[in-house]
Amino acid sequence: MQEKWDALRRHWEGARLSELFARDPDRAKRHCVEVAGLRIDWSRQFLDSTTQQQLLALAGECGFGAQRQALFQGEVVNASEGRAALHMALRGPANRDWRVAGSSVSLAVEAELAHMEAFVAAVHAGQVKGATGAPIRDVVNIGIGGSHLGPEMLATALPAAKKAPRLHFLSNVDPAQSERILGSLDPAETLFIVVSKSFTSRETMINAGEARGWIARALGETAVVDHFAAVSTNEDKVRAFGICAERQFRFWDWVGGRYSLWSSAGLAAAVHLGMPRFHELLDGAAAMDRHFESAPDAENAPLMMGLLDLQSIMAFGWPAWAVVPYADSLRLLPDYFQQLVMESNGKGVTQTGGALIRQSGPLLLGGIGTDAQHAFFQLLHQGPLPVPVDFIAAARSGSQNESATRRHQVLLANCLAQAQALAEGRSEAAVRQAMEQAGLDAATIKSLAPQKRFPGNRPSNLLLMRELCPQSLGALIALYEHRVFVQACLLGINPFDQMGVELGKQLAREMEKRLGAEGREGSGDSAVAETITWLQQQWREQTS
Amino acid sequence: MQEKWDALRRHWEGARLSELFARDPDRAKRHCVEVAGLRIDWSRQFLDSTTQQQLLALAGECGFGAQRQALFQGEVVNASEGRAALHMALRGPANRDWRVAGSSVSLAVEAELAHMEAFVAAVHAGQVKGATGAPIRDVVNIGIGGSHLGPEMLATALPAAKKAPRLHFLSNVDPAQSERILGSLDPAETLFIVVSKSFTSRETMINAGEARGWIARALGETAVVDHFAAVSTNEDKVRAFGICAERQFRFWDWVGGRYSLWSSAGLAAAVHLGMPRFHELLDGAAAMDRHFESAPDAENAPLMMGLLDLQSIMAFGWPAWAVVPYADSLRLLPDYFQQLVMESNGKGVTQTGGALIRQSGPLLLGGIGTDAQHAFFQLLHQGPLPVPVDFIAAARSGSQNESATRRHQVLLANCLAQAQALAEGRSEAAVRQAMEQAGLDAATIKSLAPQKRFPGNRPSNLLLMRELCPQSLGALIALYEHRVFVQACLLGINPFDQMGVELGKQLAREMEKRLGAEGREGSGDSAVAETITWLQQQWREQTS
Repeated sequence: MQEKWDALRRHWEGARLSELFARDPDRAKRHCVEVAGLRIDWSRQFLDSTTQQQLLALAGECGFGAQRQALFQGEVVNASEGRAALHMALRGPANRDWRVAGSSVSLAVEAELAHMEAFVAAVHAGQVKGATGAPIRDVVNIGIGGSHLGPEMLATALPAAKKAPRLHFLSNVDPAQSERILGSLDPAETLFIVVSKSFTSRETMINAGEARGWIARALGETAVVDHFAAVSTNEDKVRAFGICAERQFRFWDWVGGRYSLWSSAGLAAAVHLGMPRFHELLDGAAAMDRHFESAPDAENAPLMMGLLDLQSIMAFGWPAWAVVPYADSLRLLPDYFQQLVMESNGKGVTQTGGALIRQSGPLLLGGIGTDAQHAFFQLLHQGPLPVPVDFIAAARSGSQNESATRRHQVLLANCLAQAQALAEGRSEAAVRQAMEQAGLDAATIKSLAPQKRFPGNRPSNLLLMRELCPQSLGALIALYEHRVFVQACLLGINPFDQMGVELGKQLAREMEKRLGAEGREGSGDSAVAETITWLQQQWREQTS
Repeated sequence: MQEKWDALRRHWEGARLSELFARDPDRAKRHCVEVAGLRIDWSRQFLDSTTQQQLLALAGECGFGAQRQALFQGEVVNASEGRAALHMALRGPANRDWRVAGSSVSLAVEAELAHMEAFVAAVHAGQVKGATGAPIRDVVNIGIGGSHLGPEMLATALPAAKKAPRLHFLSNVDPAQSERILGSLDPAETLFIVVSKSFTSRETMINAGEARGWIARALGETAVVDHFAAVSTNEDKVRAFGICAERQFRFWDWVGGRYSLWSSAGLAAAVHLGMPRFHELLDGAAAMDRHFESAPDAENAPLMMGLLDLQSIMAFGWPAWAVVPYADSLRLLPDYFQQLVMESNGKGVTQTGGALIRQSGPLLLGGIGTDAQHAFFQLLHQGPLPVPVDFIAAARSGSQNESATRRHQVLLANCLAQAQALAEGRSEAAVRQAMEQAGLDAATIKSLAPQKRFPGNRPSNLLLMRELCPQSLGALIALYEHRVFVQACLLGINPFDQMGVELGKQLAREMEKRLGAEGREGSGDSAVAETITWLQQQWREQTS
């Protein structure tokens, strides 16, 4: 297959994005669709009708159509773990009879949504009370990775419902984090939601244990039942912890961690948004699901973007990708997408065990605009290797006042300008001309002109929401999920497992024991042994 | 020069890190130094005595020694802007007679530090009062990029002094950010520090204008003088804004934006820490400066790490680099280093105008451990292309209680385990054996073993602070600064300018005008024109 990517590389040698636009006045309209209030523009990519045909032919050869069908039909697409990946059922349970291995799951999803709805309504109404009878005013989500990033990203992105409690996130085993978060809270008014599919994740269970002790010390052991809820599939462990059945929210093994914010693992976000807005989020994602399943190939945003991502990596050899929302409230979105992309497709072998040579899952970095323009954009504009950028913004400001509207226009102007600057660049001749007009001397011009040149010809996508609302954000997230799936199909890898996290977990248990004991025996190299000796010395000096 | 990098690549073909350790029992001690409470271990890199010689020879050929001397002597090392880059003078003004272009700057630096000290002491003593006579309880730093990331990173990393006011950071022109920050503040008790060298940065001046209006509306125009301070070199503009001379803090054109947290541009951080702790930060950095200037080459941490960074990029073709602090409070450090690395060395041409081919300034991504283990570490362990990792942690927990100490050990165990797992990996044979012992059937083993294999042999650095204190953090930041300088020397580029941010700024002004006007004329491609038409339509629909 690499020879086909190489052919694409040769096809685009010497081409300029600006010429593609000059050649076809309808280009911008041709490579742009609108789904659920989200305008998706991939016209600033190296794409023409020949390439489109070739990319779609590649998708065909990889059996993309059949794989997409298997995904939507709840077949075992996550082969290594023997599971389906039917997160689409979570966002539109009533839209069809979703089935996993032939069994319908729609009713179970609807029941769990109703369970969430009753709980969220009760919290907002002040009916969920702590052991002392005080209403819950603070909710702490305890979870890590997929059980943390999604809910926190949503709670940062979208405003709180009127009667929503304050929300906090405890993920890290670093005691400094729990001190920072619990330090300002009143146990009597605090509810913890412990999110762990297996109820065994090391960090989460340590933090849950800490929180449990914090409640029990302040309010007594019997208070635990009033201050904890769980999102888990492990009934025994949840009950043993002291959480009652009504406070256990469920999800299913066909929901992967990094696709779980649509399920009860998104409970904290639902508490923040309120259920009507949480449903709008699901609706936006469901609209993207329908688009991905049924839009014609050339207008199918996740398909075309996934194929173009692969062209950047496999044909052009550009391993990285930047996501830059021009919105303060989307500041956690790049981290969320980083996990989605890098954990899903950061794999070294295909499903049949063949080794991948090129960096397959792209490295994803990001930050918000305009801040990022003052940080890493220097490299995007002048570094030797292009880094394609996804620009994300909302057309409308959240505020109606005149000053806010004007500042929002400045924000959007920057977003458009950066995309244009990356595509267009500035030739050394243009730089020289400008410097001559400014009256600079020849020696200065000669030395500075190369430094002020912009190669341009750098692709980007532009993703604009009508407004930053749950529906458009839901569609945006689902777009990335499906795009990652398309990448994986083309690479022949399983995007739904994460075998690469296991070895570190195993070694961590061994290191824990060694850190707590004297002596230097144990596996590992001398760097480990020397480090442990040094650490233990620091601890002795501290206590002596 | 590329042929020398290629020779290094060939030298290391087929080598294993684990063999390097097996061959030399002193390896871990040999490639490790301690500076200002910071233990720096680069033993898990592809380094042996041959390579060390070759890397140092490369440094010699590039004139590294002379360039380092020019840096410390305040010569014009930033040629394109005709400036020195003498941030070292900021952290040890009394240590020597620092000179820029022959003129001493030490006294000026000391005077400005005394100016900061008086102000910080007055704020902490409640003597800095608003127009109504209420003491200042909230300080808002208005600045972007280098005038924001450093102070916010420090204020997040280190605890506040006892009487320090609350600190906030306003950087983005997005009105949602100023609403979020100002929404909870009382104008009568709020002081703004406007940080902009030229006092013309677009975002900063827009936000400063908003803040000025917010104060004037609440407390009257005459209140402005009591609620603003400035960090700037532009006296006229500062005075015109309404800020008095005593509240103008100065720095100099030989302090680059991304090296400015050591200067009065770090005022917000000094307010947070208190001056004694800010001085400890400077002292730690000064200790690293002395180390960089005088330690023997083979034990010179910034030199050796910078050379090894270049080996990863130029010899091995690994364009990215990850920074992972195992500390909740260092969560902004990766962003700070990302700016430092990518803005400094994300350049396309050498100082003499020659084009760089390979991605020279590394892409830097990061996040805190253990969270990042549940996000992008999958790719680090199993992706085809190694991404070298800097692991950062503190030996001692900030807290003395037993539970915190235990959790801190779990945190450190994870840090050590990840570095070991990346270096060691796990062979397919070992995976098969483990699966056989677990009683799995042959078919399962055959299909799963390749997925569970870890290639290993992935380098990392381990940076351990005795404790997370200003001194060690200062040394750590200075280490990265000098390492970036070493990279730049080898590449032949200027790390102190940022010409690549200019084009976007220019185009943004044009886009602003077009967004505010009807009609489609203007430069740029049809993607711009179509987008502007769509945006204006969304605005019309909103107001109609």
